[in-house]
Parts: sequence; C-alpha cells; structure tokens
Amino acid sequence: MDKKKLRIIPLGGLGEIGKNMMVLEYGDDMLAIDVGLMFPQEDMLGVDLVIPDVSYLVEHRSKLRGIIITHGHEDHTGALPYVLPRLNVPIYSAPLTQGLISIKLKEHGLLDTSKLIAVQAGEKRSFGQFKVEFLHMCHSIPDALGLIITTPAGIVVHSGDFKLDYTPVDARATDFTRLAQMGGQGVLALMADSTYAEVAGYTPSEQVVGDALRHIMADAPGRVIVTTFASLISRIQQVIDAAAKYGRKVFVIGRSMNETVRIAQELGYLQSTQGVLSRLEELQRLPPNRIVLLTTGSQGEPTSALVRIANGEHKQVRILPDDTVVLSATPIPGNETLINGTIDSLFKQGAQVFYDKIAQVHVHGHGSQEELKLLINLVRPKFLVPIHGEYRHLSLHAKLAESLGIPRKNSFVLEDGDILELGQDGGEVVEKLPVGNVYVDGIGDIGHMVLRDRRALAQDGVVVVIVAIDKSSGQIVGRPELISRGFADKDEEDALMGKGRDLLARVLGRGDGHLSEASHVQGKVRESLSRLFYDETKRRPMILPMTVMV
Amino acid sequence: MDKKKLRIIPLGGLGEIGKNMMVLEYGDDMLAIDVGLMFPQEDMLGVDLVIPDVSYLVEHRSKLRGIIITHGHEDHTGALPYVLPRLNVPIYSAPLTQGLISIKLKEHGLLDTSKLIAVQAGEKRSFGQFKVEFLHMCHSIPDALGLIITTPAGIVVHSGDFKLDYTPVDARATDFTRLAQMGGQGVLALMADSTYAEVAGYTPSEQVVGDALRHIMADAPGRVIVTTFASLISRIQQVIDAAAKYGRKVFVIGRSMNETVRIAQELGYLQSTQGVLSRLEELQRLPPNRIVLLTTGSQGEPTSALVRIANGEHKQVRILPDDTVVLSATPIPGNETLINGTIDSLFKQGAQVFYDKIAQVHVHGHGSQEELKLLINLVRPKFLVPIHGEYRHLSLHAKLAESLGIPRKNSFVLEDGDILELGQDGGEVVEKLPVGNVYVDGIGDIGHMVLRDRRALAQDGVVVVIVAIDKSSGQIVGRPELISRGFADKDEEDALMGKGRDLLARVLGRGDGHLSEASHVQGKVRESLSRLFYDETKRRPMILPMTVMV
Repeated sequence: MDKKKLRIIPLGGLGEIGKNMMVLEYGDDMLAIDVGLMFPQEDMLGVDLVIPDVSYLVEHRSKLRGIIITHGHEDHTGALPYVLPRLNVPIYSAPLTQGLISIKLKEHGLLDTSKLIAVQAGEKRSFGQFKVEFLHMCHSIPDALGLIITTPAGIVVHSGDFKLDYTPVDARATDFTRLAQMGGQGVLALMADSTYAEVAGYTPSEQVVGDALRHIMADAPGRVIVTTFASLISRIQQVIDAAAKYGRKVFVIGRSMNETVRIAQELGYLQSTQGVLSRLEELQRLPPNRIVLLTTGSQGEPTSALVRIANGEHKQVRILPDDTVVLSATPIPGNETLINGTIDSLFKQGAQVFYDKIAQVHVHGHGSQEELKLLINLVRPKFLVPIHGEYRHLSLHAKLAESLGIPRKNSFVLEDGDILELGQDGGEVVEKLPVGNVYVDGIGDIGHMVLRDRRALAQDGVVVVIVAIDKSSGQIVGRPELISRGFADKDEEDALMGKGRDLLARVLGRGDGHLSEASHVQGKVRESLSRLFYDETKRRPMILPMTVMV
Repeated sequence: MDKKKLRIIPLGGLGEIGKNMMVLEYGDDMLAIDVGLMFPQEDMLGVDLVIPDVSYLVEHRSKLRGIIITHGHEDHTGALPYVLPRLNVPIYSAPLTQGLISIKLKEHGLLDTSKLIAVQAGEKRSFGQFKVEFLHMCHSIPDALGLIITTPAGIVVHSGDFKLDYTPVDARATDFTRLAQMGGQGVLALMADSTYAEVAGYTPSEQVVGDALRHIMADAPGRVIVTTFASLISRIQQVIDAAAKYGRKVFVIGRSMNETVRIAQELGYLQSTQGVLSRLEELQRLPPNRIVLLTTGSQGEPTSALVRIANGEHKQVRILPDDTVVLSATPIPGNETLINGTIDSLFKQGAQVFYDKIAQVHVHGHGSQEELKLLINLVRPKFLVPIHGEYRHLSLHAKLAESLGIPRKNSFVLEDGDILELGQDGGEVVEKLPVGNVYVDGIGDIGHMVLRDRRALAQDGVVVVIVAIDKSSGQIVGRPELISRGFADKDEEDALMGKGRDLLARVLGRGDGHLSEASHVQGKVRESLSRLFYDETKRRPMILPMTVMV
C-alpha cells in the first residue's frame, strides 16, 4: 500500500442499484460513505435484503473514523442496523436523515448504543486526515448532502444522489456556487451519481408532479389514493399542498408512512397547513371527494397497504367505483410484474389509475446526462469515479466525461471490492477485495450454496428416498419409500414414484455385494432415479437419498 | 345459449401478454383465432411455457371449423404444437406464417399429420356460417393479417397485431381502404389490439430503426453484433440492407435465427443482395469492420447466443475491444433483469452497446393511442372488444373509445374464459369458463399445487426428517435423522439439525402412548420443528417427516 496515495474502495453498489457504500482510505484513516441495502433480485430466492460485505472495515476498524450518510433513502441507510454492531463508529448525517435512521435503529434495539451526529450543509468536520465540508444537493428527499473531502492527496468531491432542480419543493437548490469554487481550486477526483446516465437531457423539476397532482385532485369525482415511497418527503408535501388547495384532507395509511411523516413533521420538513393531515377516525365523516389517502406500495410489495387494498384484503379501505389511484413512483427494475399486477387489480375493481406510463405523476430524483455534464463542467475534476449505478450506467458516465475532454484513462469504472489508488499523476486498481453480497434471510444471513439449492428446488422440486438396509446382511429391507414435492401433478407423481420404487428395488436388490456404505447406496439411488425421471419428464428434481440401517 | 347471438370467447391472452387466443361461436360453428404461448413469469418456477387451456374447444371439437393464425410471432403461433394434437383441425395462415409454423410442427413431429392452408390478403374463406376476408395489416413481421368476419349477427373486424406504418420495410401499408369500406357498411364489433394503449401519440415507422442501424454500421470501428427476435424479419432485412450499404457481410448465429432466415428467403420475404448473407466459414477471412453478426438473445435468454457471447462461453464468438453490440428489441416485461445483466457483461468486456434506452434501435410493432383512435374512426364499430393486452391496456383502450363517442357500456373488457353474447341490441357476459393457465414443464404440464410447493421450497428450503419406530413397542428407535437443503449455511445448519434432533427425541420419546400412527408422528414432527426453526431463524422451511416402521 502506497502511504502517499488516496484509496477509493467501493464496498457495495457499483454494478448494481442499491447498497451504495464507498470507502476512502489514506494512511491510517478510513472514512465510509453510505451503507445502503438492496432488495433481492428474482434469483435470490427467499432473501429479504442484500447488504454490503464490510469485512474489510471490520478488519481495519481501528482506522475507521466514521460513517457519513448523504441522505435518508433506504439504499443509503438501510444496512446500518446490520453492520453497525460490527463497526460501532459515529454516524454523521443531516437532521432529517438522522431522524429516519433513528426509526430504523430503534426498531433493531440499537438506538441507545449508537452515536448519531447531526451536521448541516456548510459545516466542516475532520475525520483524521480527511476534512469534510457538507454541501447542499437537491434530491427527492430534503437534507441531501454532497461532500467536499480534502485529503493529503487532493480534493475529492462526492455528489451524493443529486439532480439540478431549479424549483424544488423545499426551495433549496443545489449549491452550484460552492461546486464552481471547488472547480476553481482544482479537484483531484469527482465521485458522481450515475443512476440516470442512460437518460438524455434534463430530469424535469419536481414541480411537474405538483401540477399533475393538482389536476388529478381537482378533477377526481371521489377519493384520491396516492402511493409513493415512504421516504419521498417532498412528494408527500406536494400531496398535502394539492389536497389543501382543493379542500381535501389527507389520511396516512400504514406504519412506515406514518413513522416518516411523524419524524418529518417533528423536524419541520413537512408542513401541514390548516390541519390537512387528519386522523383516520375522521375518514367516515367526510364525503369521498374530500378525501386523499396516502399509502406505500408503489413497488407492488405484497404486504403493502396498496396491494392489500388492490386485492380487497385491507381491513379499513376498499376500492370504490369513483376512486382515483395515483402511483407516484417508477418501478425499481425487477418489480415490474408485481406493479403491473397491482395496477390491473385496481382497474378490475373499477378505479381510475394514473401511473408513470400514462401521466407525469413521478419524476426521478437523479440527474440526467445534461446534469451530469454540468456537474463535471463545474467541478472540473482531474479524475472521474462514476458511482451509484449498474455497470452500464458507470460506463456511459465515463463516456459522457470523455465527450467533455476527460480522457478515458482518467475515468475509473470500478467494481465492488476494487481498491483504486489515486494520486495527482494517475490511478490504478492495485487489489481486488473478495467482497460479495451478504444475503439477509430472517435472522442472520445465508450464502451462495443455500441459494443454489433453493434455485434447484424451485426448478423441478425434490424427491426424497428412504432405503432401509439390514445392518448384518447388508441387504435392502422391504421396498424403498419415495415422496416428492414440486415435481409432478398428483397422478403423474404417483405413477413416477411407483416406477422409481420398482427401479430401486431392482437396482439395489441385485446384490452386488454389501450395501453397508451409505454413500455407495446414495450414489446408486441418485444416478438411477435422475435418469428415470429425466427420461420420463425432461425434469431434474433434486434427489435426496437417505439410508436407515436397521 | 342464444342461437341468434354471436359468442366471443377469449381463451387466453386477455389480462396478460402472450397466449393470444380468441374463439368465435355462432350456432353450430366455431372458429379459433391465434394460439400463442406466454413465457413464464417469475413466480412460475421451473415452468418452460404457458399455453392456453383449450378444454372448451376439445369439448366442442365437432363444431370447430378451423384455426386462423394472423401472423408468425410466437405469441400467436407458439402453442400450436401442444394443442393441435387435441384439436386436429386445419390451420389457415398467410405463406410466411405457414413457413414459420411448419418449422415448429416439424420439430414436434406433427407436420405430416397437420393440415396447413395458405391464404392471401384479399382472399375470402367460409368456416361454416362465418365468412372471413383476410386483410393486409402492417406489423413487425411481413404477412400479418386482419380479419373481416361476416357472421349472421353482423360483421366483426379483428385487427390482428397492427401498427399504421406508412413506410414499412416491405412497402406494404395497412389496408385503410378496405377498413374504411367496412366502416361504411356497418360493423357490429371491432376486436382490436390493445398492446400499446398506454402509449400516447403514434408509433414511429420501422424506417427510424433503419436510419439508426445505418449510422451504427457506418461508424463502428469493428464488428457489429445485432441481436433481435428471430421472427422480426423486417428487422433482419434492415440489418442486411444497412450492412450491404457499408460493405459489410452478415453472418447468422444460432439455430432458430438460421431457420427463420432460411424460410423467409425461400418464400421471398427476405432479400439478400450481392450475397451479403454469408456462411460462417468466411468469417475468419474478413477484417472486423466488414462483419455483422446477427443473433438471438435480445431478452437475455440464458441459453441464447448473445448471452453466451456476453459471458465468454460461446464457442465461435468472443467480444473484441472494438465490437459494437446492438440490442434491437425492447424487454418483454419480466425480462429486464436478465437483459440488464447481459448489457452489463458486454460493457465489462469492452464492447460499445446500443439498446433501446440510449438509441432508437427498436420501434414497437403495435399501434399507439392515435393509431387505435384512427382504427376505431375508420371501422366505426357499434361495439369494441379490446384484445391483446394486460387488463390495464384493455381498460385504457375502452376509455380511448369512450373519448371517441363509443359509450362505456358498448366496450367489453373481458377476461379469459368470459363468454360474451353479442347482438345488434347489446351484449353481456353470460358465462365464465374455468380456464386457467396450462404450465408446460419438460414433457407434459403441471398444476397449481406443484407450483405452490416450488414456491415454498424456493422461499426457505426443505428439511427432511426420518423417524424409525419399533412396530411392536410403538417406541422411537435410535435418534431421528434430519437433513436440509436451501435452509441455512453449513455451520448454522449443523447446529439447527442438532437442536431439531434433540427436540424430537424429547417430544417423541415422551411416550404418550403408541407411536404407531404415522400421521400422528408426522404432525408432531412438523409442529415442533416449525416452531423451533421459526424461533431460531424467522424462516419457515418445508418440513417433510417420514416414518419407517422396523
């Protein structure tokens, strides 16, 4: 390790959307930025959450000076309850972010033992040899921060998640001035959000959504049900404002949405004028056209309020014929089928549904290509490290930078675990840490082998075989027992199990010596049944042979 | 059943994208239109294909006069090999469609016993009391047909899949004249494609893609690898034309693409001037900038040529640094994750990748809202039956029609199995057939129970328990055996199985009478282990208890 060089180490979130986590290291100091979680993809069967592998930080815990959380979204905060017990360092964030983190840590019984430190945009803090200045950035949640990190190797700017909304809901635009000043001083590296590097042009302002919500509230003949992410506080503010304008009251459904709204109100990030936000008890007293319901479920999550409403399974809310439902969110890749199913159910029950494909009821929180270009032009970094995004987003971001005059060799498209050593004269990946996904399932986590088995079970089911063997004679006792699950329909299953039993009786009864070695018997069972079942069905169930010595 | 009314019965493909199949019935005559397949959704674990349930047709086989296939795409032809043996009626289609169907039937050994009848646009045929006139419609494959069906109850127009491309690749536009003539004569019902009812405006002409392909072929420094659907013959023609223009040769990779190209060439639907289409042996002799490779794999199918190339597993083709890859297709909903993974792999290997999000390398084959409106205005039907699409598409199509003056009660948004009886004075759903999905897995199909078990296995794995019981004493013999798969990591698994064994030894050893009833023992095992494992892990593996009487 070159002690005079800055190390930039992505521990999660490069090459995928979700568990954003970056580490800076210089000499004996380390600083972590964001600790998000990723929702499992389709092939991660039964997994609840995916979190970063922080072994490297645990190993060097004495060097770690703190964790900075740039803003309060799950994909930047969500893994904290899982990794904090192993790291136990202070967490720095803006007040709203801190409020949202507190909810999470409290749920996990970790709040009392955690050290949360609130910082404000404009403030400066030291983390060993790193001096960090916090910077206001515009995103789809208030209190989002960018970072100006002065290191002995040079200045690094970290964009956080950002867009360049000139008319944001909270009226606080991105701090261009400070970014441009840094560009004037000379920036070693820019670590910049790549999430929307595929999208040409500019991301529209949140204002566009405000307009759409106002039109819908004005025209809807009955109730309006708006669903969005619990953490999209600016959106919640827009819903409250639009409701107030047209004399509607807003009722919040569901625990997570209620928690967020409460915290945001307490901290002053959500204004509810004229008592627009109301208690659920009042719902019955109002006519439908004075009601707005606010729920989670925009990703079609099976246990969310919206999905239960759509399926007619919610205790308090059923769809009425004049209801209007607004999905104010875009699908996270992989959730399309669940979301489409939810929209279909709502239509079937007679609701009018507005969603991103047919109305401008959502805008992204991330900058598009022209915004990424503007950021690079303001900051004028020597090197670019694209962050936040799947591999193609990072590649396209590097290509954009090239079109602005940053040579391709000065952009570092990294993968998780890459250790980039960077100095004024260039950088290179000097090591690759073996970081993988950590899959949280219930209590504790599971590894690749377990997932591999689940995939095999999911594919063609399982056949369990029991063979009883006489200890003394080494001969099979009675007939083998076979049962299966997830393999074939009842009638076919019965026939196949019968054929399997006959085959095994023949194969194992041939008496080619002593059947005393369980592994030998199991191998024979597996081999003969696999062939039989594949020939008969072209399926390959997992075969679990067990021997009982009697 | 009202003998004087027309019955319209969707057997597959309303409420989902894929297995389009409509049936018309009048008195003693039935006519089926399209027999497509659907690719399995995420929760259909291990399923290869989903096909329509044709029990109703099998039951009334003597009334079925034929099957018309409107065009050669999988979602209109794919289930033929599975249902034809049960129906055994003639299949009517245009020549190219017939060629593509022949490949399929041949693969299944059904070609010799099938009766395929070629029809041309403009031709008329009788199917009992139904008189059908075939009509040229523009779609993303040549030879797509619409249908004008004269029935005793009135005229029905079936759009097939269509768009209103004024400059299609084969220069044959949709037959507006005939559609407008029908509008003048009076049409009872229009059955119209709803696939893109969510999309405002007009679908761009295929010409747009031709422009994009030409620019890419002109600028690419090395090979160009184009991937699209094998059946997208117009697209293949555009690739050939663009390659010819810039002195490149086209090499077709993969069996299905080669088959389609061969058939389309034989039937004259694909023109390869100057020997642009070349044999793979010539590949080595050409410099990279004179090469175009054409493959399937645009949906990220794990066994496709493109995915194997992207993963470095293809025998003949590896990605070179100057390669340009074009994904000339959009994701079928549900395939996003696979496709994104493929794009990421291609970027990682240094290829330049063009796909729908960043370049206009694909246009849809279906009409958008303004085209749907135009069709309704030309045909001027009394009733609308939106077809082809998920429920929300059908609902939005009905809403579009309402904006054109077709009252909501004159649009019938059906679900699969609904029997709509229609006459000049109105229509209603008189019955709902219990049609479900038929899931093809390997040889034969599987039912809901099997899928439910696979989902359970996929979620938290399986624990198999064997308990040996002494026949005479009714007491447990030795200790129970436990093994698991897909439940927990090795160390955790060992510990949990140990705890399970101890618990069972206690619970079953308590000697509360005779353990001679297997179901009693199995119930006890299931109950005590479920609780133990849930408490320890918050997971619920499937527990399979087996008893051996010794």
